[in-house]
Amino acid sequence: MRSDGRSRTQLRKIRVVKNYTKYAEGCCLIESGQTRVLCAATVEEGVPPFLKNTGNGWVTAEYGMLPRSCSSRIKRNDTGGRVHEIQRLIGRSLRSVVDRGQLGERTVKVDCDVIQADGGTRTAAITGGFIALALALKRLKKQKVLKNIPLKDYVAAVSVGIVEGELLLDLNYEEDSRADVDMNVVMLGRGDFVEVQGTAEREPFSKAQAGQMLTLAQEGIQDLIRIQKRHLGALLP
Amino acid sequence: MRSDGRSRTQLRKIRVVKNYTKYAEGCCLIESGQTRVLCAATVEEGVPPFLKNTGNGWVTAEYGMLPRSCSSRIKRNDTGGRVHEIQRLIGRSLRSVVDRGQLGERTVKVDCDVIQADGGTRTAAITGGFIALALALKRLKKQKVLKNIPLKDYVAAVSVGIVEGELLLDLNYEEDSRADVDMNVVMLGRGDFVEVQGTAEREPFSKAQAGQMLTLAQEGIQDLIRIQKRHLGALLP
Amino acid sequence: MRSDGRSRTQLRKIRVVKNYTKYAEGCCLIESGQTRVLCAATVEEGVPPFLKNTGNGWVTAEYGMLPRSCSSRIKRNDTGGRVHEIQRLIGRSLRSVVDRGQLGERTVKVDCDVIQADGGTRTAAITGGFIALALALKRLKKQKVLKNIPLKDYVAAVSVGIVEGELLLDLNYEEDSRADVDMNVVMLGRGDFVEVQGTAEREPFSKAQAGQMLTLAQEGIQDLIRIQKRHLGALLP
Amino acid sequence: MRSDGRSRTQLRKIRVVKNYTKYAEGCCLIESGQTRVLCAATVEEGVPPFLKNTGNGWVTAEYGMLPRSCSSRIKRNDTGGRVHEIQRLIGRSLRSVVDRGQLGERTVKVDCDVIQADGGTRTAAITGGFIALALALKRLKKQKVLKNIPLKDYVAAVSVGIVEGELLLDLNYEEDSRADVDMNVVMLGRGDFVEVQGTAEREPFSKAQAGQMLTLAQEGIQDLIRIQKRHLGALLP
Amino acid sequence: MRSDGRSRTQLRKIRVVKNYTKYAEGCCLIESGQTRVLCAATVEEGVPPFLKNTGNGWVTAEYGMLPRSCSSRIKRNDTGGRVHEIQRLIGRSLRSVVDRGQLGERTVKVDCDVIQADGGTRTAAITGGFIALALALKRLKKQKVLKNIPLKDYVAAVSVGIVEGELLLDLNYEEDSRADVDMNVVMLGRGDFVEVQGTAEREPFSKAQAGQMLTLAQEGIQDLIRIQKRHLGALLP
Amino acid sequence: MRSDGRSRTQLRKIRVVKNYTKYAEGCCLIESGQTRVLCAATVEEGVPPFLKNTGNGWVTAEYGMLPRSCSSRIKRNDTGGRVHEIQRLIGRSLRSVVDRGQLGERTVKVDCDVIQADGGTRTAAITGGFIALALALKRLKKQKVLKNIPLKDYVAAVSVGIVEGELLLDLNYEEDSRADVDMNVVMLGRGDFVEVQGTAEREPFSKAQAGQMLTLAQEGIQDLIRIQKRHLGALLP
Repeated sequence: MRSDGRSRTQLRKIRVVKNYTKYAEGCCLIESGQTRVLCAATVEEGVPPFLKNTGNGWVTAEYGMLPRSCSSRIKRNDTGGRVHEIQRLIGRSLRSVVDRGQLGERTVKVDCDVIQADGGTRTAAITGGFIALALALKRLKKQKVLKNIPLKDYVAAVSVGIVEGELLLDLNYEEDSRADVDMNVVMLGRGDFVEVQGTAEREPFSKAQAGQMLTLAQEGIQDLIRIQKRHLGALLP
Repeated sequence: MRSDGRSRTQLRKIRVVKNYTKYAEGCCLIESGQTRVLCAATVEEGVPPFLKNTGNGWVTAEYGMLPRSCSSRIKRNDTGGRVHEIQRLIGRSLRSVVDRGQLGERTVKVDCDVIQADGGTRTAAITGGFIALALALKRLKKQKVLKNIPLKDYVAAVSVGIVEGELLLDLNYEEDSRADVDMNVVMLGRGDFVEVQGTAEREPFSKAQAGQMLTLAQEGIQDLIRIQKRHLGALLP
Repeated sequence: MRSDGRSRTQLRKIRVVKNYTKYAEGCCLIESGQTRVLCAATVEEGVPPFLKNTGNGWVTAEYGMLPRSCSSRIKRNDTGGRVHEIQRLIGRSLRSVVDRGQLGERTVKVDCDVIQADGGTRTAAITGGFIALALALKRLKKQKVLKNIPLKDYVAAVSVGIVEGELLLDLNYEEDSRADVDMNVVMLGRGDFVEVQGTAEREPFSKAQAGQMLTLAQEGIQDLIRIQKRHLGALLP
Repeated sequence: MRSDGRSRTQLRKIRVVKNYTKYAEGCCLIESGQTRVLCAATVEEGVPPFLKNTGNGWVTAEYGMLPRSCSSRIKRNDTGGRVHEIQRLIGRSLRSVVDRGQLGERTVKVDCDVIQADGGTRTAAITGGFIALALALKRLKKQKVLKNIPLKDYVAAVSVGIVEGELLLDLNYEEDSRADVDMNVVMLGRGDFVEVQGTAEREPFSKAQAGQMLTLAQEGIQDLIRIQKRHLGALLP
Repeated sequence: MRSDGRSRTQLRKIRVVKNYTKYAEGCCLIESGQTRVLCAATVEEGVPPFLKNTGNGWVTAEYGMLPRSCSSRIKRNDTGGRVHEIQRLIGRSLRSVVDRGQLGERTVKVDCDVIQADGGTRTAAITGGFIALALALKRLKKQKVLKNIPLKDYVAAVSVGIVEGELLLDLNYEEDSRADVDMNVVMLGRGDFVEVQGTAEREPFSKAQAGQMLTLAQEGIQDLIRIQKRHLGALLP
Repeated sequence: MRSDGRSRTQLRKIRVVKNYTKYAEGCCLIESGQTRVLCAATVEEGVPPFLKNTGNGWVTAEYGMLPRSCSSRIKRNDTGGRVHEIQRLIGRSLRSVVDRGQLGERTVKVDCDVIQADGGTRTAAITGGFIALALALKRLKKQKVLKNIPLKDYVAAVSVGIVEGELLLDLNYEEDSRADVDMNVVMLGRGDFVEVQGTAEREPFSKAQAGQMLTLAQEGIQDLIRIQKRHLGALLP
């Protein structure tokens, strides 16, 4: 049994509040246990220079932490390497499910702001960011700006890790800080991976362990996508 | 009657959620109508260089807006002149009620992050920031780090303005953008002012109008301090 | 009697040197006692993006201090919160008297550089900045770029304060550093206010005191506008 | 057959020039086909603040590209997200084989500068960076600063990918730009992984494909470690 | 005859106002024709890290231009390559005459701020900067902080150039912008050079021309040092 | 005899590797003794704003040092005053030989990156930068983008100095750090100077010494230009 009472292969409790703020074209507050991330999608006409006149749209993400989202205060507006790494991961993950030709020359920016951090903020940002993105795209369809919702699949993410020899799903902060291996996995609704990032924080891992982690992550992400579907209703044909 | 149904001299509905996040030494989410500000107080041992070995503590504030707290997205981490101006105002206002000698060589940083902006974010940040500060100081007393709560009075703030010739209390964004005059007033529990910042956005104002605005602000702030007292319980001797 | 021999309600000696430097479209060196500020107005064709194709012009200000304008050297190019706050105040004050439609799509930048600081640099910058601005606009009329001088009124500023219980006009640095309350007031020629910024540095102030400060500031600013008129000649219809 | 004549499972030709420059404590120029990276290890006494008085040392990496290392010139000193991501990866990989207790309170900084880029610069930087690090540590032992070489294992890295359905080892730039999946793998001499970073650039990948990529990477890295051993001689007990 | 009526070998009119501002330890306003530079020397206890515990002092300079010191406004706080180059030149020139052992572990910072620019600002800054520095050092002796004035010689600077084939002393802006060659020369009282910086802006120059320029510069600088002596009185033993 | 066995008037051994990297339009690695600089010329269509529609091209240079090119590691991406000064010098020197009208509205950027520093990096960058520039321009002619090679002359550079009373050509780092005077000289093939920058690091120098240094530099640069000619073949009519 884990410190918060979960079994080894159990996700934390997920709570999704759609349209948590009123201005964003798509928005949700996602909570995964004590981790809370506000995801807000902004739609802007136009694309970055490298896409001009290609007919394709763009999806990008930004990630931030409120200064006191952590146990000790972090400097405001700190955008070091970790932040860049995370927002690039979120952006690639969300782009993997968007039909950018159908989107047309528009940019969707998904802001993921961590209100409270207890491990797994980047995976919560992907899972919640997809909901915010989908809500914004649904609205564009409803407003008849787009004919179809330009999504090819669902996408969600979870972490898995090895802590004291045990394989665990969805690590909280306390588990993450003791983990030998930490792996973030991003997967589509159809079960294929778009990102696998495994890091041996203390002990290297074998190919067999890599396989076990991927299997466990698959099960967790299937649950997350079920939750996404519940909140988003019919989205894909 | 105003667009949101209030009378000219009525505050928006205030909602205070204490301890909205779990890590800060003192924290509240304050909502004033549609404006929502998360205030988090962090206590750190030590003071800035200019206070070393004086025996006095320091209180400072930082202010930020989430990128999609506004109707159109603002650039992340934008800390132009407006932000500096606001956080200096919040800091001065909070310091005005702290007995810095009793606090000792400690620093309290109050982060005020705007989740949703609908006018009056700086005054909500002062009113809510005081609650976060007071909660942090109560905790220090409870932990016996401090013998007394080093507060001399309550402090809260409100805006008043002149819109199409009418004197209004607590402007929302739509009113603020039409105002001829906009005045932010910060006042203590005992009824004296610590800050008065009146700006003629369109039309200059007379001394008589200045007096009327101060009177209206006093009434509004008295209500706000009543709310602070309800949430904070016995605080001052 | 005050340290420099003035009565409580007396301005410091004002000296204005028009066209102190040769390049600016309008320029003056203003001295208020030991405070010396060089104000230079630059006229540029075009306006910031948010005003394009509106037919309106723009007026903005920048404020700086030479490193050794103060008793201890300040870091060169330091543009922290105080500088932003001051240059925004100067800009708003100057804009309040400009008919931006008559100015047309032009920008006037007023640089206010403190050569020597002895209290009241921001108010001297407003009073002197108006002279530089007016000289630049007169030149545009003389060059037949403009048909009329696009000014609606005069504008000047002064500080008032409460020092050891005494109400004082136009505080110098030594007085300012002992003041309980410090209020900067910006007023038009017709006697109405465009900015009132009162701060309780040590002791809060009552509504009655606020009124007395405004009255004293009005008298001081009337004198300053008399001096502006003497240097600028016929300006308004 | 691939564009440069290799089989699907063949590494590019590796060339290592030890001590390419004269000042660094350890240095090598590593060439992998047309990719050329200069790796230079600097030893400094002392550690970052978070390690002070722990008795442990630190190993970190920086990564840069010369402006014309690429087919089109890149801006000098561009340290966006990609650079941060890469240098964090190199640093973690090198730290995974260092016995930081035996190193003591010293810092080794490994600078990896790309002279010419043709795909696989980050993996070449890890493979070559290890050689530079090992040379620096050997020197410390020779100088009797250290009693033992504080290394626990060898570490090297390679990329694998899926290009038009084919599994390929060690992608060059042209292959990388057409790849559906790109995976960077970092492995120890004993065959366990320290980093696995797989990204679906175009098409997601299955668990079976993930396993095949890991197997192919293992074979490639074993070859690279054989080359490291040839250049470094007896290193580990 | 030149545009301002001077002969080819004549300096512009020099005007020196000592103690132009009241706070600096040493200060002068130097005017060379229409060029006006305010030089202010600040004395601070302590030296930069690389001089700690050597017993030697440090002298450094900073150079800035007010935004409207030029015919078209320059961006405030612009510290590009030109500014760095100039302040390094001023610093080296002033250090060349200071006995840094006698100065002891103190730093003198000389701020050179251009009020109005009409060519030759860097040489005026050296000539005036020396006066500000000497005044500050005299004061230290008078205050008995130093036993002797730690100066070894006078130092001053002038520009020479070749304009349409003519050798000219002390170029103003209009001449400088037409010059084929522009040379800044820094010389000691005893007639030896500390800096010679000649640049062919349009046409290269021969060794014979280099010699002629140095001779002409020597004569000009001798005049400048005579002026320094007149303002500084007895300075050297 | 000097520490590296040279006579007083002897250059260090020069080695030039043309096309050291494959992407740049013109490229050479130049070695002068232990000093190694990689020079890469990039040709881009278009010119900076101040040259638009003038029909003239632009040539500019950037200079950098790899972190471990020096005996102690320097901070990556450090672009302080020294770097600006050097790259401005290189740029001016290269522009002095280019017929910018014949080049047309194109920009050539010459990146000079120091791989190993042992004195004389800026002069090696000029001598090698010219080769890279000439190779790029030859290629433009070969590609029939240009009708002629738009070069007016060769340009190269060397340092001379006075070390313990001795006049030395081409100082290495150890000599440079003991020098009383250090002079960088840039000269054309026809024997005229484009830049002379002499600095008295310790002892001022007389006009006679200035003359001797220029003579010695002339001889050294003539040798360098002979080497340039050998590598570049027929270049000028």
